[in-house]
Parts: sequence; C-alpha cells; structure tokens
Amino acid sequence: MHAIETTVPLPADQAEAAVRATLQDHGFGVLTEIDVAATLKAKLDVDRPALKILGACNPTFAHEALQLDPSAALVLPCNVVLEPDPSGGTRISVVDPRELMPDPAFAELAATAAAQLTAALDALPG
Amino acid sequence: MHAIETTVPLPADQAEAAVRATLQDHGFGVLTEIDVAATLKAKLDVDRPALKILGACNPTFAHEALQLDPSAALVLPCNVVLEPDPSGGTRISVVDPRELMPDPAFAELAATAAAQLTAALDALPG
Repeated sequence: MHAIETTVPLPADQAEAAVRATLQDHGFGVLTEIDVAATLKAKLDVDRPALKILGACNPTFAHEALQLDPSAALVLPCNVVLEPDPSGGTRISVVDPRELMPDPAFAELAATAAAQLTAALDALPG
Repeated sequence: MHAIETTVPLPADQAEAAVRATLQDHGFGVLTEIDVAATLKAKLDVDRPALKILGACNPTFAHEALQLDPSAALVLPCNVVLEPDPSGGTRISVVDPRELMPDPAFAELAATAAAQLTAALDALPG
C-alpha cells in the first residue's frame, strides 16, 4: 500500500514527539498507539526492530467521512508508522487516505486529508 | 468497503463485552479503542448515534504479515465497529482483511484471518 513518507534525523522518542506535535498543528489528534514490537515480544517472544503505530484522526474529516458513508469507520483512524531508519533517524509512514478510501464518494475528502497529512510531514525537521 | 457483519440482540455494553470475549477466544486481542461518538462530541460538539471502534489484532497473523511486507503496519489492526441497530441490538462490522490487504502476497494470510474473524462473529449470540 502506498504511504506518505519521510525520514527525520531524530531517534524514536524525539521523532514521535515531533510527529505528535506536527499532527496536532495540522488538525490531527492521536487517538490510539500500538507498540508493535513490545506487543509481539510479549505475545510471541519475537525480537524485532522497533515499530510503533499511532492512530491519527482529524475530527472534522472523520465526521464528514462518516456522514458520506458510515462504513468509513472500518478504516479510521489513519495509521502513522514509526520505524528506525538505517541512517540512524526515524522513518515516518502515513497511510494514504486516498488508498484507504478508494470509493469515488470520498475522493475530494481523501485528497484534502492526504494534502493535510503531507503538510504535517513536510513541517518535520528534514 | 466490504465488512464481515452480524447483529447481536444485546445493548452496546453487553455487545462489546461479548465481542471482546469471542475475539480473545479466536486469538485476537483488542489493542485500541475509540469512542467515536464521544470524541466527535468533545471536539466538534456533534451529537450522533453511538459508534465505537475496537482495534483487533492476532499477534501471529500480524507478525506473519509484517514479515511478508513491513507496509502491513499501515493497515493494522483490524477495525471492529459497534453501532446501535434499529432492532434494538448492536451491529458488529469487522473490516475484511482481504480488502485491507489486496496484494496477492497477503492472499492466504488474509483469507485465514478473515475466516477466523468470521468464526469469532459466528460464535456470538444470534
């Protein structure tokens, strides 16, 4: 699946703080958080690189999407994935709302949300 | 988007308890929870029918998916949506992993996960 991506020259904890701040500045709250690496370690005793998923949601966009089609709830919120990058920084990947909501009814809204998420990532330190 | 769906003759709180129990019985933990109606009320002062999203994850399936393609993190966990049904019960809709992961590389795993989620819903009171 296509993602909106960037890499920041920050370790995981500082990258996460920066991502949360820019999402908030661009109208997205973080509603959920999954530490995938810790969960897989706890459940399966698997050791893997750090992997965290934040669930980002812009309430206005979510409300509009649910009014267009209640089944939008099946794909909310937008995942923001944080992983270590080989450069020593952190790679940020955001699911593209246009792929998550391919129905033409969502086209305009999904494009607006994608543009806003792109702006949020563009505001991160490069 | 297509969902795996059922309706249970239970009010929201009992339905949620039953859904959490059957998901656990079928290998899925609930990692996230969003009370969408409460969030939209708090953020936008919008009054809407109850709507809750649980994020369900089977650690074995998630680990396999991430090994097949790390971008699977963009669509984890599987949303389980709870809404009031006009019958007075609660409608349960689970996103179909086959639609969430249309890449052929995920076909077998997504079909297995879909079958397991279907079995979980089938075990609910009808």
